[in-house]
Amino acid sequence: MNPTNDPSLTSWVKSAQGSDFPIQNLPWGIFSTEGDERRRAGVRIGDRVLDVDALQEAGLLDAALPRRIFATGTLDAFIGLGRPIWSSTRARLSELLHEEVAILRDDPVLRTRALVPIEAAVTHLPVSVGGYTDFYSSREHATNVGRMFRPDDEPLLPNWLAIPIGYNGRASTVVVSGTPVRRPLGQMKAPNAPAPSFGPCRKLDFELEMAAVIGVANPMGSVMTVAEADRAIFGWALFDDWSARDIQAWEYVPLGPFQAKVFASSIGAWIVTAEALEPFRVDGPAQDPAPLPYLVQPGAMNLDVELEVAIRPKGASEPTVITRTNFAHMYWSTAQQLAHHAIGGCAMNIGDIIGSGTISGPTPDSLGSLLELTWNGTRPLTLADGSVRTFLEDGDTVIFTGRARRDGVSIGFGVCEGEVLSAPVRDGW
Amino acid sequence: MNPTNDPSLTSWVKSAQGSDFPIQNLPWGIFSTEGDERRRAGVRIGDRVLDVDALQEAGLLDAALPRRIFATGTLDAFIGLGRPIWSSTRARLSELLHEEVAILRDDPVLRTRALVPIEAAVTHLPVSVGGYTDFYSSREHATNVGRMFRPDDEPLLPNWLAIPIGYNGRASTVVVSGTPVRRPLGQMKAPNAPAPSFGPCRKLDFELEMAAVIGVANPMGSVMTVAEADRAIFGWALFDDWSARDIQAWEYVPLGPFQAKVFASSIGAWIVTAEALEPFRVDGPAQDPAPLPYLVQPGAMNLDVELEVAIRPKGASEPTVITRTNFAHMYWSTAQQLAHHAIGGCAMNIGDIIGSGTISGPTPDSLGSLLELTWNGTRPLTLADGSVRTFLEDGDTVIFTGRARRDGVSIGFGVCEGEVLSAPVRDGW
Repeated sequence: MNPTNDPSLTSWVKSAQGSDFPIQNLPWGIFSTEGDERRRAGVRIGDRVLDVDALQEAGLLDAALPRRIFATGTLDAFIGLGRPIWSSTRARLSELLHEEVAILRDDPVLRTRALVPIEAAVTHLPVSVGGYTDFYSSREHATNVGRMFRPDDEPLLPNWLAIPIGYNGRASTVVVSGTPVRRPLGQMKAPNAPAPSFGPCRKLDFELEMAAVIGVANPMGSVMTVAEADRAIFGWALFDDWSARDIQAWEYVPLGPFQAKVFASSIGAWIVTAEALEPFRVDGPAQDPAPLPYLVQPGAMNLDVELEVAIRPKGASEPTVITRTNFAHMYWSTAQQLAHHAIGGCAMNIGDIIGSGTISGPTPDSLGSLLELTWNGTRPLTLADGSVRTFLEDGDTVIFTGRARRDGVSIGFGVCEGEVLSAPVRDGW
Repeated sequence: MNPTNDPSLTSWVKSAQGSDFPIQNLPWGIFSTEGDERRRAGVRIGDRVLDVDALQEAGLLDAALPRRIFATGTLDAFIGLGRPIWSSTRARLSELLHEEVAILRDDPVLRTRALVPIEAAVTHLPVSVGGYTDFYSSREHATNVGRMFRPDDEPLLPNWLAIPIGYNGRASTVVVSGTPVRRPLGQMKAPNAPAPSFGPCRKLDFELEMAAVIGVANPMGSVMTVAEADRAIFGWALFDDWSARDIQAWEYVPLGPFQAKVFASSIGAWIVTAEALEPFRVDGPAQDPAPLPYLVQPGAMNLDVELEVAIRPKGASEPTVITRTNFAHMYWSTAQQLAHHAIGGCAMNIGDIIGSGTISGPTPDSLGSLLELTWNGTRPLTLADGSVRTFLEDGDTVIFTGRARRDGVSIGFGVCEGEVLSAPVRDGW
């Protein structure tokens, strides 16, 4: 086991113990504070953000690291230093936070400067997201969507078991958790309507996903094996691929979802590193038929991460949990997705993200979208405040949480949340 | 008429007259030279590139322009100054190149420094292309593809006449004309094959398109009218959306083309401005049924641009022209495409590009892809060197050219070309 993952480690940051952000986690993000608006890199520890730029300025990190690399506004430059540096930096942060290490613990001035209370931190997009690719790798989700969108055909298409099916998403609207999401306008047509119409989406949905952050570039024309792809992943964050189901149903044949998805995708503020998730590797579902050789996995590449979705209507005192599932259910792993993507010679850049696809489990209460949970609006859900939902209403906040648990340690992803705002209004339409 | 488009204007750069790059054109690009590797902005005039950064440094441009704005490596910053500045800068360049204006003409030192022979200029990606969206707006192309890919159904799908159908392309592999393109590896399955296979694409194709360059940003959650979209376009370039037809046929249902397109898209080095193309506005085909109000055009928004595709096999002495068509054929205009895209609140950034979709005309010799020209490989083409093509072979160079002609003036787009390299080879597959 990587020593930074040892469950017996404890930190002098007391709030870390028993939280989703113990010393074994140390997820990366970008934050600023009211008094210091520079966007800088931090790791979460308990109820604090550790300002890694401040540690570097205080001379506590490896002197070989480029100066101010944690103050460039995104994690891109740090991630670009490569896997050995991710690992050595993580080991150093773990050491500085260790219960028995005095250097930061016993320096009250630096400690105050470098440990920012989480409620004082404003989080920002952690990477620049030049490219965003979304996959479709839950067998349960693909089957459910097939049943609803193509009721007269086999729900799972013939290519699905052979290819990690994916498409290019819209990178320009990937936003950090907490950013409100405006209900899109668009064109739609009910199957029996005589003609299409235009207006605000009436079937606004979330998609529960995980986003992998690419940490090693793939030059155009180069290819990656599954093993190389596995090692090219910097980490994962929670991810909400907001979807307009009525727009999608009308537009998606033959070129796929487009306007149904371009209005927003939300990524959690905290990237949990692949290294912190090593203890949570599990085998995915058996793949039958066997994948072609370029997609064969040399080891366990799924991750055991418990996931939950809640909705909090405007003014409601509490959110209602509407689904509980697990990232381990995915038929195709992130490494397989990335290897398939790179095999065509697609350039992948640091900070690009790979959406897993909606994560649905096998039971009716483990589905990763309202489309499935309400079976396209035909089985409404009742929330704790008594209100009923088929799809999202203005003012709803959708909240994803995730954590990997083992040996008494919980590795949390924080939240990925967004409030739905009403559609834009302009004269003349 | 905008005075810079007056057909009677002539330049003291003698090679400009009668060429595709007269004083009425002045397309923008980014170039460097062997002796000066800085990437800087230039406009083509005759057989020269006019170094606009050198003009600014010499004090010949509006002093209000930000210093070194033409030396930032892309056109993004200049484009970001907005339409009035595009126009005033164009007017000033036109003035400096005018036959009767002595300031540059009679300054041999500056003239030598600022006028670079085209053969000495290395061109680069002109904008940073954060987002690339590809449309599918030629009725002829969509009908032809429908006939081949879905032979049992109506070729034109019900949504096609209501929506400018599009999808997100892969921005990371948009490369400038001249960049070689590696044949992709991928997964494919012939309709009657018992199982899919993996290997080099065997149906490599081009798609003849035009790319519009976004000049005015659309913030996330904002919307644009068609008229606003029309005015948000900085200009157009030639564009080749390389396509792997065998990979596409197997993967594209239900999420659209993905690996079939991610390996490369080539953009011409020269962006012809919307202003230079004003005299070439024409009405597109009649739209029946009438588009929904948000897609109605307040004026002529298609462009009369003659286009040609040629293939030059490795070692062949000359290219063979295999198609001739016109951008005016498109059913949906760029302005309609962009308005549809922005209506959902999609963030558009400066330098984003909008691919028109394959431009096919109504006759068999005006089709914009080999898929259509050879009817999916069933009707081979014979080239001038006697060789036969169904799809592209390694060593083939595909060459697009385009020009708009009127009143004795030819507004050329230069070329968009790329040579096909053999697929990557790695052990173990």
